[in-house]
Amino acid sequence: MWEPYQMDELKKEVRAAGFKRNISNLSNLFNHPMSAIVSLGGCSASFVSPEGLIATNYHCVEGSFLQFNSNKEENLFERGFVARERGDEKKSAPGARVYVTLESFEITDKVLEGVNDLTDSLARASIVQENKKRIIKECEDSPEIECRVRSFFSGETYKLEKVLKIKDVRLVYAPPAHTGEYGGEIDNWMYPRHTGDFALLRAYVSEDGSTQEFNKANVPYKSESYLKISSAGIEEGDFVMVLGYPGRTNRLLTFNEIKWDLEVGFAATVKFLKRGIELIDEHAKEEDGTKLKYRGLKSGYENYFKKISGQIDGAKNFDLIQSEQGTWEDFVSYVNTNASHEEKTYLQELLELIDQEHKERLARTYYGNSKLISLVNRVYRNAIEKEKLDSERKSGYQDRDQERMTNSIRSLAYSFDARIDKEIFLDRLRDYSEFDSSLRRPKFSQFFKLEQDFELTKTEVNKVYSSRYLSAESFSELMKLSIEEMNSSSDPLIVLAKETYEESMYYEEKSESEGARRQLLKSKFIKLLRTYYQSIDKQIYADANGTLRVTYGNVKGVTLQDGVSYKPFTTLEGIAQKHTGVEPFNAGKKLLDLIKAKDYGKYVYKPINSVPVNFLSDLDITGGNSGSATINAKFELVGLAFDGMLETIISDYKYIPQARTISVDARYLLWTLDKLEGAENILDELVIVN
Amino acid sequence: MWEPYQMDELKKEVRAAGFKRNISNLSNLFNHPMSAIVSLGGCSASFVSPEGLIATNYHCVEGSFLQFNSNKEENLFERGFVARERGDEKKSAPGARVYVTLESFEITDKVLEGVNDLTDSLARASIVQENKKRIIKECEDSPEIECRVRSFFSGETYKLEKVLKIKDVRLVYAPPAHTGEYGGEIDNWMYPRHTGDFALLRAYVSEDGSTQEFNKANVPYKSESYLKISSAGIEEGDFVMVLGYPGRTNRLLTFNEIKWDLEVGFAATVKFLKRGIELIDEHAKEEDGTKLKYRGLKSGYENYFKKISGQIDGAKNFDLIQSEQGTWEDFVSYVNTNASHEEKTYLQELLELIDQEHKERLARTYYGNSKLISLVNRVYRNAIEKEKLDSERKSGYQDRDQERMTNSIRSLAYSFDARIDKEIFLDRLRDYSEFDSSLRRPKFSQFFKLEQDFELTKTEVNKVYSSRYLSAESFSELMKLSIEEMNSSSDPLIVLAKETYEESMYYEEKSESEGARRQLLKSKFIKLLRTYYQSIDKQIYADANGTLRVTYGNVKGVTLQDGVSYKPFTTLEGIAQKHTGVEPFNAGKKLLDLIKAKDYGKYVYKPINSVPVNFLSDLDITGGNSGSATINAKFELVGLAFDGMLETIISDYKYIPQARTISVDARYLLWTLDKLEGAENILDELVIVN
Repeated sequence: MWEPYQMDELKKEVRAAGFKRNISNLSNLFNHPMSAIVSLGGCSASFVSPEGLIATNYHCVEGSFLQFNSNKEENLFERGFVARERGDEKKSAPGARVYVTLESFEITDKVLEGVNDLTDSLARASIVQENKKRIIKECEDSPEIECRVRSFFSGETYKLEKVLKIKDVRLVYAPPAHTGEYGGEIDNWMYPRHTGDFALLRAYVSEDGSTQEFNKANVPYKSESYLKISSAGIEEGDFVMVLGYPGRTNRLLTFNEIKWDLEVGFAATVKFLKRGIELIDEHAKEEDGTKLKYRGLKSGYENYFKKISGQIDGAKNFDLIQSEQGTWEDFVSYVNTNASHEEKTYLQELLELIDQEHKERLARTYYGNSKLISLVNRVYRNAIEKEKLDSERKSGYQDRDQERMTNSIRSLAYSFDARIDKEIFLDRLRDYSEFDSSLRRPKFSQFFKLEQDFELTKTEVNKVYSSRYLSAESFSELMKLSIEEMNSSSDPLIVLAKETYEESMYYEEKSESEGARRQLLKSKFIKLLRTYYQSIDKQIYADANGTLRVTYGNVKGVTLQDGVSYKPFTTLEGIAQKHTGVEPFNAGKKLLDLIKAKDYGKYVYKPINSVPVNFLSDLDITGGNSGSATINAKFELVGLAFDGMLETIISDYKYIPQARTISVDARYLLWTLDKLEGAENILDELVIVN
Repeated sequence: MWEPYQMDELKKEVRAAGFKRNISNLSNLFNHPMSAIVSLGGCSASFVSPEGLIATNYHCVEGSFLQFNSNKEENLFERGFVARERGDEKKSAPGARVYVTLESFEITDKVLEGVNDLTDSLARASIVQENKKRIIKECEDSPEIECRVRSFFSGETYKLEKVLKIKDVRLVYAPPAHTGEYGGEIDNWMYPRHTGDFALLRAYVSEDGSTQEFNKANVPYKSESYLKISSAGIEEGDFVMVLGYPGRTNRLLTFNEIKWDLEVGFAATVKFLKRGIELIDEHAKEEDGTKLKYRGLKSGYENYFKKISGQIDGAKNFDLIQSEQGTWEDFVSYVNTNASHEEKTYLQELLELIDQEHKERLARTYYGNSKLISLVNRVYRNAIEKEKLDSERKSGYQDRDQERMTNSIRSLAYSFDARIDKEIFLDRLRDYSEFDSSLRRPKFSQFFKLEQDFELTKTEVNKVYSSRYLSAESFSELMKLSIEEMNSSSDPLIVLAKETYEESMYYEEKSESEGARRQLLKSKFIKLLRTYYQSIDKQIYADANGTLRVTYGNVKGVTLQDGVSYKPFTTLEGIAQKHTGVEPFNAGKKLLDLIKAKDYGKYVYKPINSVPVNFLSDLDITGGNSGSATINAKFELVGLAFDGMLETIISDYKYIPQARTISVDARYLLWTLDKLEGAENILDELVIVN
């Protein structure tokens, strides 16, 4: 996952993989194709027409587009959605955004202005935060621009990212769930795969070009660049790239962190998630619509559960502990020989800080698992911050952040139910109560009587959940109250927020202070690591952090298990083979008929004598890359990356050559639009090249 | 699964598969290599030294060799067994045999002498049985010879098989279970596979060459031919054959039979087996040794359960009902045009008889699930038959059969426990009681009060199991009693045998009469089928029936699922990959160390850069083929066939080109003997060619 600027340094390697054009194109964010690549915040996407059409994954539009637009009368999961004309397009849930990266440049010195290695940690935290706020304020020179200070290498480097924020995004096309998530949780992270994980959105702006919330008068955003789609597609061995916004990797950790994650953290997370799934299964019901409301959270839990389980297996299969221990020992021996006394002391302190944090982490997982309480805390805090000048407010509570809070409140309407929120909170609270009191928040524990019989705790929880603020509407009212008004309220939810406010501030400060110290120590560690990498002639790149990245490689099957090889392409016939009629293997009748009739049209790929559905490549991606354009050497869209493989998902911790990216083939998208949907308006708009 | 004589007719096809030598060798049972191929009764095997050494599967020696020789002090499953010298070899459980086929020739006319199409069915049954007995008696001209009348094509053809029966068989080598059944039930019928499913036995005869029970003075049997072992092994694409004794296939059924099996029978069997496994799990215990005693029965149930489940899936995946319906309709339309009125009438009657049998079959499954009661019935019957002249006795109760009965009684000692036998019987009896009384045996039902409250049934069952005959020792005494003595006994088990004897005779007669009719009708059906096959120029071969067969083909991987291909070979590394330390994936430490050290010796196969463990070929085998020699075009042993693949196990009903045979590679056997066991005496005896 290279930063675009690194492509210039990788010319030789990229050429060796089969790329023949001008590489410097890739390192310039303003150039095609980089300028066609956008973020949806959590997912990646790309422009695919001059009229603001955007291609991404089906699973990236499930929440804000499909769930938001579905109700008992009209279930978009069941029937899918095709806008036959612009006016039919469906608007998004509040807060859905398209982010176009405009600029990115280093600003480490500015972020760290006024601090040095001796600055007290709390002061450091506050100065750095003020610096960041100032930098962002200076940068955000128009309402459509959003600026972010991004930390690279755990805060050793900072970059300023300037993005265009498009606020009116609409659903153009999504297949039915039985295509878009064919195989569901069973096939998730698995290959062979047959998922039609594609969807189309459109970005809108006002007529004067400014970005604006949904408005009928808005016009499609005309991107300077967009990707053409290849109907010829790729073949086995072809050069491919993925351009997108990978979220997070952990490849530059200390060994203490890796070891803890592998030996303690993974297992604890598995337990936490498993219970979460059980709780939703137990309490969310079809009848009252809560099953739909918690569909997203549950599938998030399931997804993460499977991922962690895969990481546990992968760590074992690829001998991660052993190999990372070796790597670490080599590094330590390099440090012992080459580092100064001061550098060694910093490293020692970092490892101790990490060990301390590990001790507290498990209890923390079980603290604060109430969406309701988290939200009231934020709203209460917001009321306090609003008393201050905007520039003096805590980041997250400034004017620019108000919209995000409003959107969180609105989301209560479609992904929250007080009854279920309470059940989840209660269950987590019971676990929390079982941790040693030194690891728990005293005031919070006292409020919920965690030292006493749990029946008393239940009574307190029930009291809190008898609040009148349990819905999006009532919370919107709450948002309007001043801090005085809140402080004089006797609503039990507000009382809770008030009584635990100071404690929250204490823990926030503690965490910020530790964070600032860790940032300093980590940056020292990274500097050592850099010189060590240089000494062994190894290239270093920053862990994924949600910024635009490039990965290049080839279409390629893989052998992960003795005696079995995964072929690079799956076929339409594979869909029929898996079909049982029972979700998630309930392919549509028309789809099955077309497959039976071998009606491949021009989308056939001869070597497999079918339309390719999904394909494998040795590209290096992670979460956040979902929806990323997979492009060929001519920068044409050939697929959409949507998943990795469970067997190698541990690659978040270490690059693994056998890791594979699963993309949905663009030919399957085109075939679906053509044969299945007859969506000629969309096909006409796409620029399809052969 | 061709009969050897057919190889002459298949010259062209065998040549096309890559065979270059004299094919007529294969059609002559007295020639090498056919004369090296033996049966163990249920399993196949082959001579691999001039000194009577025999290679077969590990799973073929589990019961009579490993279980028989294991006890609390010495567990051969755990540690395996290597006889470092002849004197160390372990003797077998009573009744273990090696059968060498000497001759096979058609005798249909002799079997059907004295009957014609108009003979009454019961008379037909009795005449045919008398004919068979006479034929066998004439054939068995010395004590070491066993003769069998074998039915081919459902009794359309009969052949007389003359076999040499070797009675002293000893265990020479078996790996520990964690090699011999690595992967256990989980991997059973699966690929990729890593099972060391090999073992070595030795056949002994008396010094004068006559076959005799175990005796220290016995000497190794010197087979006229034996297979050399190839350490060069086979490569992908190579010509291979399997020579062995496949047990049973159902490829020449009427559509009524196929349809019933697929739509009713399979599901009923699955239910029956699943319950059987549960019952053993529930009642057999480690502490009192019953877990070990029922290990065999349970693994038989599990094996069959998995097989049937695979057949259900395979029938669906390969569209069996639809394709067989089509085939049947073509046949029927041929019959309508070409057959005589009489032939059509016979066919109609056959289909009606089959439908009638189907009606009765389910209830019959639940009748008689007590090993104890089955055995006492046989012993009681034996006492009655013994009053007659040997030649007049029912087949199965003649002097020649006494040994088999004695062995059954002995087996009570190591694979029977009265408590568990009773629990299984009771549970099955409850199901039996729920069938309509018209489908149940009235006297038996009355004896166990099946029309009344089941608590009363339990009392009756408890009474029967309070018999003094619950062990091998007491049954041996029982065997000595005359029928008068038995009839005067008040032992509840003997009383049961006495009271249900007449009813048993009635049902036996009914079944024989129906069987005789079916044999006539089936032979008419087969004659029609032959002419139909001729009309469409298709070769016909008899269903597997436990007689010596040949199948030829090539070493070949396979794709059974979209996007996945199975490679033809698995490697030593795959063993380590699957190893978890938990049974059945608990490879031995020494094995893992050798793999880690890549200590392949001369057994390495370059294209996979490892020692091949198991390999795939497109050979056509079924149960009974276990232990069969897989040989190359030079007739050298290159592996031992031990399994098929679940996905294509439905091939018992129809030949499927994608079906694969899994063999354990001879190089893995040699590597194990060499590197793991240091069994130089055995390696010296084997004739290893490169």
